[in-house]
Amino acid sequence: MQTVATGLTQSEVKNLIDTRLADYCEARIADAQVVSPRYTELWQSIDRLLKAGGKRFRPYMLLSTYLAYSQNNSEESSIEAVVPAAMAQEFVHVAMLVHDDIIDRDDVRYGIKNVTGHYKDIYEPLLPDIGERTHMARSASLLAGDALLSESYRMLSTVNGPALLVQKATEIFANGVFEVIGGELLDTESGFFAKGTVNAELVARYKTASYSFISPLTSGAVLAGASGSEIMLLQQFSEYLGVGYQLRDDLLGVYGDSEKTGKSTSTDIIEGKQTYLIEQFDKLASEDQKHKFDALFHKADATDEQISIVKQLLVDSGAKAKVQSKIDELRQKAIYSVEQLSIPSESKEGFLTLIDRCLDREA
Amino acid sequence: MQTVATGLTQSEVKNLIDTRLADYCEARIADAQVVSPRYTELWQSIDRLLKAGGKRFRPYMLLSTYLAYSQNNSEESSIEAVVPAAMAQEFVHVAMLVHDDIIDRDDVRYGIKNVTGHYKDIYEPLLPDIGERTHMARSASLLAGDALLSESYRMLSTVNGPALLVQKATEIFANGVFEVIGGELLDTESGFFAKGTVNAELVARYKTASYSFISPLTSGAVLAGASGSEIMLLQQFSEYLGVGYQLRDDLLGVYGDSEKTGKSTSTDIIEGKQTYLIEQFDKLASEDQKHKFDALFHKADATDEQISIVKQLLVDSGAKAKVQSKIDELRQKAIYSVEQLSIPSESKEGFLTLIDRCLDREA
Repeated sequence: MQTVATGLTQSEVKNLIDTRLADYCEARIADAQVVSPRYTELWQSIDRLLKAGGKRFRPYMLLSTYLAYSQNNSEESSIEAVVPAAMAQEFVHVAMLVHDDIIDRDDVRYGIKNVTGHYKDIYEPLLPDIGERTHMARSASLLAGDALLSESYRMLSTVNGPALLVQKATEIFANGVFEVIGGELLDTESGFFAKGTVNAELVARYKTASYSFISPLTSGAVLAGASGSEIMLLQQFSEYLGVGYQLRDDLLGVYGDSEKTGKSTSTDIIEGKQTYLIEQFDKLASEDQKHKFDALFHKADATDEQISIVKQLLVDSGAKAKVQSKIDELRQKAIYSVEQLSIPSESKEGFLTLIDRCLDREA
Repeated sequence: MQTVATGLTQSEVKNLIDTRLADYCEARIADAQVVSPRYTELWQSIDRLLKAGGKRFRPYMLLSTYLAYSQNNSEESSIEAVVPAAMAQEFVHVAMLVHDDIIDRDDVRYGIKNVTGHYKDIYEPLLPDIGERTHMARSASLLAGDALLSESYRMLSTVNGPALLVQKATEIFANGVFEVIGGELLDTESGFFAKGTVNAELVARYKTASYSFISPLTSGAVLAGASGSEIMLLQQFSEYLGVGYQLRDDLLGVYGDSEKTGKSTSTDIIEGKQTYLIEQFDKLASEDQKHKFDALFHKADATDEQISIVKQLLVDSGAKAKVQSKIDELRQKAIYSVEQLSIPSESKEGFLTLIDRCLDREA
C-alpha cells in the first residue's frame, strides 16, 4: 500500500502508472493467449504503443486532485484505491489516439509504428494489394481501440471506494468520452465542411478540455469526496486550462520548435487545419492579406518559402498575438479559479505550476 | 416500478427495452445538441439504427436469468433495478455491429442505411471523391460505435444493486467485450490467413457465445445474487447454446430460406467464408469432391448453378449432416446443464424453449 501525504511528482506518477499499465497488459496478453495467438498479437501491439510514449499527464492530474481533497479529510491518504481510475484515464486516451490515427490515416505514433502500421507489416505477405492491406490493418486497429476503451471502464469499475462516488466518477468519465467523440467528429468534419460551420474554440472545449482535463481533475476530486461546489469550480478551472492547452498546441503546430515538439510546423498549414489561429486570421486580416493567404494555405505542394509567408501573414494580421492574448486571458481565469478552491496551499501551488506548464509548454 | 413474479415474454421485454432505448437516445440527442448540431446528427443516426431492428434477445436473456434467480430469494422481484444492464447488452451489441459493418465494408443494416451509409449521403455534396467520402463516412461510423460502447458501460454503472454484484456484472460484461473483440479479429483474419490458422468453433465461441450468450445469461444471475456454482453451470449452458446458435447460423447462411433470414444463401459461398461447415467439408470430402469444390468456392463471379453444385457437395461429403449432429450434441449438453440448475421449474421450461428457439430457428 503506497501512502502519500504531501503530493506526488509527475515522474513518480509516471513510474507508478507505467508499472501498473505494463502489469495490466501482461495479464490481458495472457488472457488473449487463451483465445488465440492471433489475439495476443493485437494486445502486444497495444502494449508496445503504451510503452512507446505518454507522459501520464491525465493520471497525474487525477491523483493530484484526489490528494488535494483527501488531505482535507485525513492526515494521510492512500492513492492505491484510485490508481485504477488513473490508469483508466490513460487507457481511454490511448483508445482515442488509436481511433484518431485511423481517421487521420496515420501509421506512426510516439515515433513507432502504431497498430495500423504494425498490422500492415504483418499482413503484407498475405495481402499484396495495398488498399486491402490498409483496410485490414485499420480493422485490427479499430478493434484495438475498442479493447482499450472497454478495458478503461473495467479498470474504473474496480476502484475501491464508496459505490456512490465510483458511480459519480464513472458518470464523469462517460461524459468525457461522450464529449470527446463529439469534439473528434467536429474536428474531422472541419476538414471539409464550409468555414464557419465549426468553431475551433468549441472543438478545443470538446476534443481536448473535456476528457483530458475536466474528466481527470473532477473525477479525482469526486473520488476524494469533494463537495459539489468544489467540483463546479474545478470543472471551470479544467475548461480554461484545457482550452488554453489546445490553443498553445495550435501555436506550437505553426511556430513551435519541431525538435522539441516532434511535429513538423508545416503540416497544419499544408493540411489547412481550421484552428483558432486561422479563425482569428479570418477575422483580423485585410483583404490583401486574405488574398495572399488563400493562395498558399491548404496547398499540398507548398514550398518552404510559401509556408514562411503564411506564418508571417498570421503574425502581421495580428492573429498570432490574438491567440496569445486569449491564452493569457484563460490563464488569468484559471488562476482565479484555483484561488477559490478549498484546498491546502501546497496543492494550490501545484495547480498554479500546472497552469504554467500547460500554457507555456514548448512540447 | 414494474414488478414481475413469473416471467416476461420476449415481446414484453422488447416493448420495455425499445421504450427505454428510445428515451435514452432522446436524452443523448439533447446532450449532443449542446455540443453541436453536427453531433446531434450522429446520435440521430444511432437512434435510427436502434429503432430499425433487433429482437432485444440479449436483454431478454439477462432479465430471464435475473428473474429465475430472484424468484429463489423473494416472492416478488422487480426488474426495474437491472433494466440498465439489459439495455447495456443491446448497446454493446449495436456497437459491435456498427464496427463490424466498417470491417465488412457494409452500408446497410436491418434493411436501412447504417451509419456509414447515412453519412455517405450527408457527405456526398462535400466530398465528390468516393474514396474520400467513404473514409469520412466510416470515420463517423467509428465514432458512433465508440459512443455506443462507452454508453453501454455508463448504463451498467447505474444499475441499482449491491456494489459488489454490480462490479461482478461489469467484470463479466468486460470479459464478453474482451472475447468478442478476439473473436471478431479471428473472424476477420480467417478471410485471408491460411486455412487451418483459424478454427471456426473457436470463432463461434468467442465471436458469438461470449458476449451474446454468456454475458447476458450469467450477469443476470450474478445481479440476482446467484451462487458461484450456478454461474459456472450457466456459463457452460451459454457456451453450448451460443456455439450451437452460430452453427445454426452457418447452416442458414447456405441452406436457409432467404425470405425468412433476409440474407442471400450465396454470399458465404462467394466470399469463401471459413465456417465450421466448410471445415467439416475439408475433413470429410473425397479428393474428387475437394477438387470440384475448390474450383467453385470463393469465386466472385460464380453462377447460380455453380453455387448449387457447392451446396450439393457440402451435402454429399457429409459436412452438412456433421454440422447438424454437432448442433444436436450441443443441444443435449445444453439441456443437461439446464436440468442441473437450481431454479423454479417454469424457469427451466423457459430455458428449454430458448434452446429450441436458438437451435431450430429459421431466421
